[in-house]
Amino acid sequence: VIGWWRSPIIEVEELPVDISADELKQIAAAAALEQVRSGMLLGLGTGSTAARFVELLGRALAGGELEKIETVCTSSSTEQLAQRAGIPVVGFSSIYAVDLAIDGADELDPDLRLIKGRGGALLREKIVEQAAARFICIADESKLVERLGRGTLPVEIVRFASHHLSSRWSRQGLEVEFRGGAASPYVSDEGHHIVDLGVPASEPIETFVAWLRSHAGVVETGFFPTEATDVFIARAGGVERRSRS
Amino acid sequence: VIGWWRSPIIEVEELPVDISADELKQIAAAAALEQVRSGMLLGLGTGSTAARFVELLGRALAGGELEKIETVCTSSSTEQLAQRAGIPVVGFSSIYAVDLAIDGADELDPDLRLIKGRGGALLREKIVEQAAARFICIADESKLVERLGRGTLPVEIVRFASHHLSSRWSRQGLEVEFRGGAASPYVSDEGHHIVDLGVPASEPIETFVAWLRSHAGVVETGFFPTEATDVFIARAGGVERRSRS
Repeated sequence: VIGWWRSPIIEVEELPVDISADELKQIAAAAALEQVRSGMLLGLGTGSTAARFVELLGRALAGGELEKIETVCTSSSTEQLAQRAGIPVVGFSSIYAVDLAIDGADELDPDLRLIKGRGGALLREKIVEQAAARFICIADESKLVERLGRGTLPVEIVRFASHHLSSRWSRQGLEVEFRGGAASPYVSDEGHHIVDLGVPASEPIETFVAWLRSHAGVVETGFFPTEATDVFIARAGGVERRSRS
Repeated sequence: VIGWWRSPIIEVEELPVDISADELKQIAAAAALEQVRSGMLLGLGTGSTAARFVELLGRALAGGELEKIETVCTSSSTEQLAQRAGIPVVGFSSIYAVDLAIDGADELDPDLRLIKGRGGALLREKIVEQAAARFICIADESKLVERLGRGTLPVEIVRFASHHLSSRWSRQGLEVEFRGGAASPYVSDEGHHIVDLGVPASEPIETFVAWLRSHAGVVETGFFPTEATDVFIARAGGVERRSRS
């Protein structure tokens, strides 16, 4: 992984070599928690790694290490998790800016570009993370890819257009799969459908995303080119911290 | 108006000089109806001019001049209008392509670029019109502008982000108004809010729209740069027909 990044390394901590993926997520979340200061308004992500952060934050508030924290949540599931952990949650409508957002990713490339949304919350995640002065993406090293698109790209589409567009794209040769199946698709928190697309190897992902977004009805994609300001990667060798240069 | 367009004129018909704006809409709609052939799948627009077309289409089907027409509608209000006029309506989900879409516009520039959406249906309109092999925009001459943005630009935003984004844009100096008022905003057929933005004179509208669309949560804008393939403009001097060159 050394030499793989195109941004400077900030810090590497030593970790035991035989650590599990689950423990790595926990360690990445703990590293992010160190960046939180009392009084901050935080954006809470969605997914298994973000959930570790929510648990740790709840404990820090209960233990008195942090206070006067408010949060906005990127999904109704994270909101429930935060409320169970005793974390104050405020509505996003009244928010002008977020101090710090913490969230995981499905894939992460050497330019701190992400693919997110396999948890189904990509739209609110991108809204909250664009509103944040700083967005720390936390992940274990299994999320590192040389080229984004190892897995599928989630695309959120208004229900009126989802079947039409997926049918067109499919006939154009793309691999298209409805989240939840075409017969009874998953409905996002904002009331849209999500389709998972194979990313063509023949063109840069940003070109593919621009083409997707030229279709009316496409609300957002899981490609996050510039949102992450920092990444904290937990891996067997240590926690690497990188910042956008 | 002669010399104003940057696309070739197809035809001008003579009309009486003292004709009313209402009659002009009717005449533009009648000109569009002449382009419809039996067996077509049509996209029906939304608004006062599109409503004239729906009425005329209903009469042509009732009178037997046209048959085997199916339609998809760009709003629930147009769907009701079509059903009352006895026009067969099909769901858009099952549709692969539309033969011909007919719709009005709020503003129309010399490059056949439109601003639409003051009727609140811009998203479904753009989806259906992008799916159409041909989209004839019908309008009376009051809609012609040298530069788009004489009025406001409608922007459709997911509810989660609408207050946040409108507050940011407002502090950045933009004129921002919630459709229906910020306290109880209008909700579109797709469940979103619409804000009407003043268009800055300092930059090309396409630059402004690209900036707007870089904000997660913006679903669509009322700027239709390439969708109209033809425009039929009814004015005191006649009906002008222009096609995208």
